[in-house]
Amino acid sequence: MFKVRIDDEISLMLLQEKDAGKIFKVVDSCRNYLREWLPWVDDMKSEEDYLPVIKMWLKQFAENEGFQAAILYKNEIVGMIGFHHIDWRNSNTSIGYWLAEKFQGKGIMTRACKEMVRIAFEEYQLNRVEIRCGEKNEKSRAIPERLGFRQEGIIRDGENLYGHFHNSLVYGLTRKDIR
Amino acid sequence: MFKVRIDDEISLMLLQEKDAGKIFKVVDSCRNYLREWLPWVDDMKSEEDYLPVIKMWLKQFAENEGFQAAILYKNEIVGMIGFHHIDWRNSNTSIGYWLAEKFQGKGIMTRACKEMVRIAFEEYQLNRVEIRCGEKNEKSRAIPERLGFRQEGIIRDGENLYGHFHNSLVYGLTRKDIR
Amino acid sequence: MFKVRIDDEISLMLLQEKDAGKIFKVVDSCRNYLREWLPWVDDMKSEEDYLPVIKMWLKQFAENEGFQAAILYKNEIVGMIGFHHIDWRNSNTSIGYWLAEKFQGKGIMTRACKEMVRIAFEEYQLNRVEIRCGEKNEKSRAIPERLGFRQEGIIRDGENLYGHFHNSLVYGLTRKDIR
Amino acid sequence: MFKVRIDDEISLMLLQEKDAGKIFKVVDSCRNYLREWLPWVDDMKSEEDYLPVIKMWLKQFAENEGFQAAILYKNEIVGMIGFHHIDWRNSNTSIGYWLAEKFQGKGIMTRACKEMVRIAFEEYQLNRVEIRCGEKNEKSRAIPERLGFRQEGIIRDGENLYGHFHNSLVYGLTRKDIR
Amino acid sequence: MFKVRIDDEISLMLLQEKDAGKIFKVVDSCRNYLREWLPWVDDMKSEEDYLPVIKMWLKQFAENEGFQAAILYKNEIVGMIGFHHIDWRNSNTSIGYWLAEKFQGKGIMTRACKEMVRIAFEEYQLNRVEIRCGEKNEKSRAIPERLGFRQEGIIRDGENLYGHFHNSLVYGLTRKDIR
Amino acid sequence: MFKVRIDDEISLMLLQEKDAGKIFKVVDSCRNYLREWLPWVDDMKSEEDYLPVIKMWLKQFAENEGFQAAILYKNEIVGMIGFHHIDWRNSNTSIGYWLAEKFQGKGIMTRACKEMVRIAFEEYQLNRVEIRCGEKNEKSRAIPERLGFRQEGIIRDGENLYGHFHNSLVYGLTRKDIR
Repeated sequence: MFKVRIDDEISLMLLQEKDAGKIFKVVDSCRNYLREWLPWVDDMKSEEDYLPVIKMWLKQFAENEGFQAAILYKNEIVGMIGFHHIDWRNSNTSIGYWLAEKFQGKGIMTRACKEMVRIAFEEYQLNRVEIRCGEKNEKSRAIPERLGFRQEGIIRDGENLYGHFHNSLVYGLTRKDIR
Repeated sequence: MFKVRIDDEISLMLLQEKDAGKIFKVVDSCRNYLREWLPWVDDMKSEEDYLPVIKMWLKQFAENEGFQAAILYKNEIVGMIGFHHIDWRNSNTSIGYWLAEKFQGKGIMTRACKEMVRIAFEEYQLNRVEIRCGEKNEKSRAIPERLGFRQEGIIRDGENLYGHFHNSLVYGLTRKDIR
Repeated sequence: MFKVRIDDEISLMLLQEKDAGKIFKVVDSCRNYLREWLPWVDDMKSEEDYLPVIKMWLKQFAENEGFQAAILYKNEIVGMIGFHHIDWRNSNTSIGYWLAEKFQGKGIMTRACKEMVRIAFEEYQLNRVEIRCGEKNEKSRAIPERLGFRQEGIIRDGENLYGHFHNSLVYGLTRKDIR
Repeated sequence: MFKVRIDDEISLMLLQEKDAGKIFKVVDSCRNYLREWLPWVDDMKSEEDYLPVIKMWLKQFAENEGFQAAILYKNEIVGMIGFHHIDWRNSNTSIGYWLAEKFQGKGIMTRACKEMVRIAFEEYQLNRVEIRCGEKNEKSRAIPERLGFRQEGIIRDGENLYGHFHNSLVYGLTRKDIR
Repeated sequence: MFKVRIDDEISLMLLQEKDAGKIFKVVDSCRNYLREWLPWVDDMKSEEDYLPVIKMWLKQFAENEGFQAAILYKNEIVGMIGFHHIDWRNSNTSIGYWLAEKFQGKGIMTRACKEMVRIAFEEYQLNRVEIRCGEKNEKSRAIPERLGFRQEGIIRDGENLYGHFHNSLVYGLTRKDIR
Repeated sequence: MFKVRIDDEISLMLLQEKDAGKIFKVVDSCRNYLREWLPWVDDMKSEEDYLPVIKMWLKQFAENEGFQAAILYKNEIVGMIGFHHIDWRNSNTSIGYWLAEKFQGKGIMTRACKEMVRIAFEEYQLNRVEIRCGEKNEKSRAIPERLGFRQEGIIRDGENLYGHFHNSLVYGLTRKDIR
């Protein structure tokens, strides 16, 4: 309902309780694909499991600590993108995202992420945006690379997925970069 | 940032902390006009006074109890409209609104309120929408009358404004009315 | 234990945890009778179900937002009456009540409700008291009519009972009426 | 408003926000007399200071942990009595009280305290009631002694009053004592 | 991990979540012995049951209301000792403790309790320490007697153990006693 | 009071309210030195300012999210070290620290930090420890370098100090490194 329009095809939308069924269906449609890099997929077994999560996301927004938004493509939910947190003291944030399998390859996430970067710098007047990707998650890495982020380091064993540790690449974009 | 688009001129937008200055200015620009029918105008003396209120509005949204939205006209904040509360058990809600003085007479509130009615019936699947207006507040009464609400009663001394009691008219619109 | 005495037969009493068994028994004795107009009857299946409700009622009292009281007739619990909420800004409140089937016809509720009106005007110094009744609930409507309330309107589809909407009559009594 | 009637002269009443002025006046009328044995008297400088305290007392009642009540003598507030806490696991409680100076000598506190003992044993079905008095507070000690409590010990330096420690006498009454 | 060293054999340690298994095992090793005087033993059926309790103990410490500590003997958990609460206004506290069966007779509890008394007087600058023991719990009574506490009274029916009431002896030690 | 002993000279201690004066004095003794790299120094103007902070640190410990500890050198508070947070899902944590000016150069922080690393890997069984230092803060950088951490990247503009952004170096140590 409440959206940030990106272009004729894509917008970002805050999820409400009434949308629980829709977000459940997208995740459920490609569980195996998503669970490779997302640790929470197995926990979401029904529409009801999204109700407390949606409330938590909106509380984050109410607390002025960033937001989680559904990505709409031609008016259909196809993934999510969000700020994990906003560190107002240090004026930075980080972005996380996922896209359903069958909507890959249309430039959707690049456009969505570009808008999130704009929101961080222009709307929230932050100084730095960070994206962390699994070292071997090439689809995910392509996003910050396409958007001009610089690779700043490699966090060894940064993420635990199903009992195995994976290195995380840190990509950063600062206000200076975009001038 | 997050908006419901109504038409080329008008949209509804959730307010965030960063918008406190803008909403303060609109109210401040026509304090005398607004305070005639709004009891809270005198309490809002600075931009900072809106911070806890904006948080409270977004918490209402997070709790799935309705929302308060700024009305944007040609991308400028000109007023607000919202659901006071959603009574899910009885499947109804009520709408409140105000518009800055100099934006009167453009049909802004009628269009905004019509969209709120649509949201109530279509998005939230409610059965009834109510609007209460001061008996002598003719500008306010014109809105539900234009939108097909039926006058259902008069609540004697329904509202206390600066120590004086005023009758409130109750207007209702039910799902049956719009079929 | 803590009571407002009305007359030799009737008083109002705040319920405590220790009274859960008694209130359960009264409701249980006439479930079919009560459920016609009360949506919560089916939810109360045991004495224990009343413990969180009693705590919630006493918290309402502690927050200075009105109270819910058992009606005692000859020292036996026979029903309940309460203020749904007190709107201190607008100086008004509304009353709700129910009476067990076999105690109907003794004027108990009229006397209890008259005392609640007195409490609202004299003890809490409010300006207005409202009662809403189902349009077809003739026993309930008789109470405000007997006590001089004026019928101020009809809220169409005001209440949802077991999936069916019912009109609610609004009755009001203001400080001016009783002078 | 909500009272436990003791006899024609005396009753116990739960205090509400609206009673803040009355309880302030009683304490204020004999500050010097009361402060000798009550450490909180100096903190209560205005009617408003009682508002959070009254809310706290009613929350104790709502949590089923006992209550604090005003003592009414001929419909006037003359003191207070209450249960500090109820220890449901060990089935005991303790009583505290004070009486305004000019109402001393009428047997008011003995009658009030006797009713509290009855409430503890009969209404709450507790097994033990305790009263602690300053060793040198003879007026206070007279109450449990008159009501058949047994002196069970002396807590050395049990209470700190204005920087000086005082011994406290422990008086106890058990269910066995009253059979 | 965080310890107060008493001597080469004994220290007190704050329990953390990671210690839940160890504390469970000690209690489990002598359930029948402990349950005679401790009402909570039967409630602790698994390691997980200790998680909320450990959190509660550390919150007490965080709130500056005293602490509960494991007693380590030669680096092994053998019992617990703690302050039930600190009454800062009256400058006193009380101590509770238990020791696993097979570590009795080594002077462990006397040394642990002596340190707790030192902490109360020297670290927290309190004026009084109290210990309550079951009248017939001779092992427990030996501790305050050995440490110079004075028996100040007998609380009749002070404790409810499995439905039977037991007298509690009150032992006190004040700052004056130790000068 | 509650300490982790490191060697004859050094230990880590949980701070309690009673230690507020001591920690205030250490910081106050070298404000100018500390504020170069610590953004919070100017906020701590009195002993009382530490009370809510100490409570917050102990709550972190109670929530099993790591801890903040004073560093004691020859029984005197000379600095602090702590885990910012524990990420149990990804099995990692990060360390922060500061040392008063006149205790520099004695190897205190290297020893303290080495113990924190041991606690992370052995006591909490974590997989990774991270330290972030200002790129130009050579004293701080020496610690992870001495302890075998690997420099994994440089977070550009990672920290905001008095309105200026500074790069942060990320140092990491994983369980594999120490085998």
